[in-house]
Amino acid sequence: MSALSEFSLIKQYFEDITTERSDVILGIGDDCALLKCPEGQQLAVSIDTLVESIHFLPDVDPGSLGHKSLAVGLSDLAAMGATPAWFTLALTLPEVDQQWLAAFSKGLACLAKQHNIALVGGDTCRGPLSISIQVHGFVNAGDSLRRDGAKKGDLIYVTGSLGDAAGGLAMKQGKLTKGIGSEVEVNFLYQRLEQPTPRVGVGQMLVGLASAAIDISDGLVADLGHILHKSGVGAQLDIEDLPISTALSTLSTEAEHLALYAGDNYELCFTVPPKHNDQVQKKLKGQCTRIGTITGDDGIVFFKNKKLIKLSGLGYEHFSTGR
Amino acid sequence: MSALSEFSLIKQYFEDITTERSDVILGIGDDCALLKCPEGQQLAVSIDTLVESIHFLPDVDPGSLGHKSLAVGLSDLAAMGATPAWFTLALTLPEVDQQWLAAFSKGLACLAKQHNIALVGGDTCRGPLSISIQVHGFVNAGDSLRRDGAKKGDLIYVTGSLGDAAGGLAMKQGKLTKGIGSEVEVNFLYQRLEQPTPRVGVGQMLVGLASAAIDISDGLVADLGHILHKSGVGAQLDIEDLPISTALSTLSTEAEHLALYAGDNYELCFTVPPKHNDQVQKKLKGQCTRIGTITGDDGIVFFKNKKLIKLSGLGYEHFSTGR
Repeated sequence: MSALSEFSLIKQYFEDITTERSDVILGIGDDCALLKCPEGQQLAVSIDTLVESIHFLPDVDPGSLGHKSLAVGLSDLAAMGATPAWFTLALTLPEVDQQWLAAFSKGLACLAKQHNIALVGGDTCRGPLSISIQVHGFVNAGDSLRRDGAKKGDLIYVTGSLGDAAGGLAMKQGKLTKGIGSEVEVNFLYQRLEQPTPRVGVGQMLVGLASAAIDISDGLVADLGHILHKSGVGAQLDIEDLPISTALSTLSTEAEHLALYAGDNYELCFTVPPKHNDQVQKKLKGQCTRIGTITGDDGIVFFKNKKLIKLSGLGYEHFSTGR
Repeated sequence: MSALSEFSLIKQYFEDITTERSDVILGIGDDCALLKCPEGQQLAVSIDTLVESIHFLPDVDPGSLGHKSLAVGLSDLAAMGATPAWFTLALTLPEVDQQWLAAFSKGLACLAKQHNIALVGGDTCRGPLSISIQVHGFVNAGDSLRRDGAKKGDLIYVTGSLGDAAGGLAMKQGKLTKGIGSEVEVNFLYQRLEQPTPRVGVGQMLVGLASAAIDISDGLVADLGHILHKSGVGAQLDIEDLPISTALSTLSTEAEHLALYAGDNYELCFTVPPKHNDQVQKKLKGQCTRIGTITGDDGIVFFKNKKLIKLSGLGYEHFSTGR
């Protein structure tokens, strides 16, 4: 073990992820990587850590973990409308388990390839299992999707379906409260938990159309709350319009609650000025659902079948969720 | 505790580190930071993790830990000749200890200010204590110091003194093998262990003069070995020329061994073509020591008082050292 240095570890298992990109002047293997930012574009960066037993179960499939470790960062790039370019990996491992490393790096490489994002640097060390990844992407100056642009009257959308990851986790933990679903439904929730799809393409398509965007990794209510706070507006949500998967509604009596509050949800929430609505509907057909409207008031009000309802809970915001 | 989100934590303790820089378009508080790279320059990036009980003792002073967490990254920028610009922080904490956070962030902020490097993003989560920092700097295209440029006949230099951090650690662990030093000597070694000085200014001065450079965080022999390997050359080291501090030679019988092999050493090793030697001597007077010469052979040979000697040991390269 003592002969395996940082470099040989990275080299051995992560060689395939160093996709050739002409903007990588110098990749892994010096004190720093050297990178070239395209002129006229801004660099979007985000760092996220996944810690064992906090962000993933100890028995998680390592390939899925590799996928998810990068997906959470790609989801942040998606929320800015940025195009992925490079990432770095700081990997802390209790031991050098070759099988684990091979599977983990394969899961990582597969998602990296899909998004043409190159591994340009890293650090490996011994310690409790933990993965920090920093992603880097580009966005034209002035084109980024931010949290502070929502205006009264804008329409609120989300991508995909809500609450599935939390449903999958509850199922893994034997906490699901309702019936037994089909194998397809069960696997759907597991996949949503362990191999989320970052909405990178959607984010890019929203540039110039959305007035604000965020990824709802802390849950819809908490993250929409950030848009409202930064933009100085409020929101009306139409509960019956929340996109809830058949799998989740079949398997949980709490589907609505999870859709509103549960985190680990790598979907985008975005707001669209009415004048761009037709274009968004056309461009993103089937990829997003309108769930409400931005108001001039403070906070969020909930409607169900056109009636104002009261909901408890302030969102899914806790110390350990750092997405 | 549950009400303290990632964002409020970062905001509270790390606000002072968000030094105003005109190239930070959007700092902490959105899905990504948005940054502007200067035209004609390359972006140098490096990520490093410090894990409790692997890279630092559990009772380390949190202010020193804040300093060191950033210093290891700055040392990588120094080794490329880059000018520091931005950093991100992924902080995993077992609990929210306000006193600890205040001291840690103060140590971090103090060093950040010295180098005009701004905190632009981060992630905090619960888990075993661990700190990952990614640093970003700029270097003119073609000007970076790399590992692959050393040529036969170049002179080999190091900054500062060698082996002090390892001496300080041995002292903390009650493993020092010789006598008792003065309080000043003891504190010197502790400071070299816990608050290393990254040689950022030296790195920048070497641009255009040095043919290769590396930071010797894995130890002189191991890291010089990387230069030799990448450059396809060998080296002769003159043992009696190794810069060893009075504190280390007073307190350890193994000073020479530590100087050659011990890691956690945030000094630079660099090579200088003979034609630039006078200029380096003049510019870096008192900041560096010549320790040998690049040869056309493979590997390193050691000389002591002009006689070839044999040394065992292949350097300080182990799984847990990820600097």
